[in-house]
Amino acid sequence: METGLVRFIGRVEGVEGDVSTIVIWPGFCRGLIGLDMYTRILVVYWFHERDDDRHRGTLQVVPRRHGETELRGVFASRSPSRPNPLGITEVELLSLEGCTLTVRGLDANIGSPVVDIKPESMDRYNAG
Amino acid sequence: METGLVRFIGRVEGVEGDVSTIVIWPGFCRGLIGLDMYTRILVVYWFHERDDDRHRGTLQVVPRRHGETELRGVFASRSPSRPNPLGITEVELLSLEGCTLTVRGLDANIGSPVVDIKPESMDRYNAG
Repeated sequence: METGLVRFIGRVEGVEGDVSTIVIWPGFCRGLIGLDMYTRILVVYWFHERDDDRHRGTLQVVPRRHGETELRGVFASRSPSRPNPLGITEVELLSLEGCTLTVRGLDANIGSPVVDIKPESMDRYNAG
Repeated sequence: METGLVRFIGRVEGVEGDVSTIVIWPGFCRGLIGLDMYTRILVVYWFHERDDDRHRGTLQVVPRRHGETELRGVFASRSPSRPNPLGITEVELLSLEGCTLTVRGLDANIGSPVVDIKPESMDRYNAG
């Protein structure tokens, strides 16, 4: 099986309501320069609580919270149980101070490793 | 350094103009069931041509194709040279037949490993 290695660049350090704090490790912090020109960014994180054979072997789920009763493929769902435990959420960037980002709308748990940050949009009024 | 392992689930097998063909390996194909209810999906792929120490050590770039001259952080760019060589593109799902997806708008090269597929939107008229 072909594989790739991801190196975590930071971690979700705090969650209060819909506002989350992300700290990027010092060795990667220079990569944030200029990010604050964007208001919408993608946060790629790791579902570390699902990083085991059972959850990563899951190929079909019943998305009950949407009131469904039938199985569907994990690639047709946002389930955290999936072959690669990657979460991707578009969030609002509220502030960037040093190596710390404050964002609104991230659905990651505290302690989740962060894998990547990408710019999405500069439009503060595009709710995405 | 904390790391995670990704297992490739398929590959970009063909590119013609803005239409690309993705083949999902048989062992993961059951995970596609129901995906064809969506018209917009996220494709997460691996910049395999940049998966080396030099490209993965890149923290700042000059995004010349946008006419810029100043360095910015890779996390404020979509550069394929970045600590984790993950590409994420929202594309239009044209068809799903067996384990083969045909999509419009994927900017991945032929041969790129695919890491994940996620549903984005059912709205055929939301150009994203």
